[in-house]
Amino acid sequence: MTLHHPSLLVVGSVAIDSIITPFAAREHSVGGSATFFAMAASYLAPVRLVGVVGRDFPDSAVRDLRQRGVDLQGLEVVPDGLTFRWKGRYHANMNTRDTLETHLNVFESFSPKLPDTYRTSEYLFLANIQPNLQLQVFEQLQAARLVGLDTMNLWIATAREELREVLRRVHVLTINEEEAQQLTGEHNLVRAAKAIQELGPRSVVIKRGEYGALLFHEHDAFSAPALPLEDIVDPTGAGDAFAGGFMGYLSRGVDPSGAALRTAMIYGSVLASFCVQGFSYDQLANLNVTRIQERFDAFSRLTDFARAELT
Amino acid sequence: MTLHHPSLLVVGSVAIDSIITPFAAREHSVGGSATFFAMAASYLAPVRLVGVVGRDFPDSAVRDLRQRGVDLQGLEVVPDGLTFRWKGRYHANMNTRDTLETHLNVFESFSPKLPDTYRTSEYLFLANIQPNLQLQVFEQLQAARLVGLDTMNLWIATAREELREVLRRVHVLTINEEEAQQLTGEHNLVRAAKAIQELGPRSVVIKRGEYGALLFHEHDAFSAPALPLEDIVDPTGAGDAFAGGFMGYLSRGVDPSGAALRTAMIYGSVLASFCVQGFSYDQLANLNVTRIQERFDAFSRLTDFARAELT
Repeated sequence: MTLHHPSLLVVGSVAIDSIITPFAAREHSVGGSATFFAMAASYLAPVRLVGVVGRDFPDSAVRDLRQRGVDLQGLEVVPDGLTFRWKGRYHANMNTRDTLETHLNVFESFSPKLPDTYRTSEYLFLANIQPNLQLQVFEQLQAARLVGLDTMNLWIATAREELREVLRRVHVLTINEEEAQQLTGEHNLVRAAKAIQELGPRSVVIKRGEYGALLFHEHDAFSAPALPLEDIVDPTGAGDAFAGGFMGYLSRGVDPSGAALRTAMIYGSVLASFCVQGFSYDQLANLNVTRIQERFDAFSRLTDFARAELT
Repeated sequence: MTLHHPSLLVVGSVAIDSIITPFAAREHSVGGSATFFAMAASYLAPVRLVGVVGRDFPDSAVRDLRQRGVDLQGLEVVPDGLTFRWKGRYHANMNTRDTLETHLNVFESFSPKLPDTYRTSEYLFLANIQPNLQLQVFEQLQAARLVGLDTMNLWIATAREELREVLRRVHVLTINEEEAQQLTGEHNLVRAAKAIQELGPRSVVIKRGEYGALLFHEHDAFSAPALPLEDIVDPTGAGDAFAGGFMGYLSRGVDPSGAALRTAMIYGSVLASFCVQGFSYDQLANLNVTRIQERFDAFSRLTDFARAELT
């Protein structure tokens, strides 16, 4: 991989999921926001991970992440604990789901600890964990050129003040449509994005699942479609894979201006599109740069149109 | 207007609506699929309209349509009847709505009659009316280079056989997401579009409201976003305005190939974006080519991104 690039640190959950879709199901599906993020970002930048697992976390998953060059020094293993578990069932449209079970397990007493070598990371993504834990990361980091953040409805409802404190310190927020509305009280996404920008982040990425994603950067808007796919196996982790592609591209030292953010949106969409084509990180683990660029080109074809003169 | 272009005929409803949104309401709002379509298409091609109204239809609306150059020879006026009326209430998201009242009135006994001068129309759009009435139009038309069709959940449920007969004879179907799923039994839109193509139309446009629209043409896919707007006044007629922009561009004599269909998708999106910014056709009635081209350019900016090399 591209070891000359500055490192990208992700702090988030590592999980064992149980997934039910209208077409199939998988038990013991390795998941978690940091896992999907790291797998996706690993094709674009060197990734360091901070998270926690229990004694039940499969060695094969550790090997798979190492295989992708992910630095796991920051992956804490609690020998007498169990890994965070989530069970969910997707609806017929594959775009909405019900949570059937959540077991925090080792996550309940987790506190992120950055190995010394991580403290100079220039790029940071705070994947979806409790805002209090996200704040602890800032205390251990020397400086960061670009900080991205994800969150969820639970923290918006139960830890709003801490979340606002985190928001003041990040450059980019990735958030889904309903959460953007919940956070701001605005149904209209243009207004919701403006309200979020006033809380801190200069750039707001609103994720819309099968409808793609919108970027609001300063006064600029960009729309990235989702790739229409005939077979969607498991949407779990698509948002995290999106964030991985997005932050991974920005961590290559590019100037995080409007143009780079747009290209990053497409890399995010590319990695998300691979993610949903398999359970867990099945599809994300076996990519290469050629396949990623080919799919990037598929997004170009999907959105390309010519201007006409009306005379 | 561009009188050298071949004429575009629209057959559909002309209505008086009563609209309630979370922010405002309007009684006696002139609407109907043919009205919105004609207003939107009028900036791109000469439009002929076939529809029916009652004695209560406002003269001002007739003047507004004439002002836009719409040929109203085919607008039947029933002196002892009342115009079709629809009352609807939009939900907080402005993307879904409930029908509160429907009064067919003169529409109940309507049968489309094409004036002689209309019979050579080369471009036809069958807006959303009963499939039996749509079939009657084919009998009165000499030949058409391109036929577009819209329909709705009611006809899919109650007139499926007649609808399939219409589908066999059209080139393009514009349909919303839920209706595409209802018509085909496929949740996945790629599969739904393929199933529709097998019923006749070579091109399928799937309308997704605030999420934009997808075009499936032969084996090609194109995604057109919706323009993120800060103020949406009334979504009524957006799908018809989209169809007007789409068919209007294709009626300029361009080869309806993949490239022209893509450009047409953006004109459709442009006209739809103006439509939702006002009640009725308030915004559609007062456009000009410059404003339309400026908004077309806004769609270019909204979707533009650069390819990067990963080396």
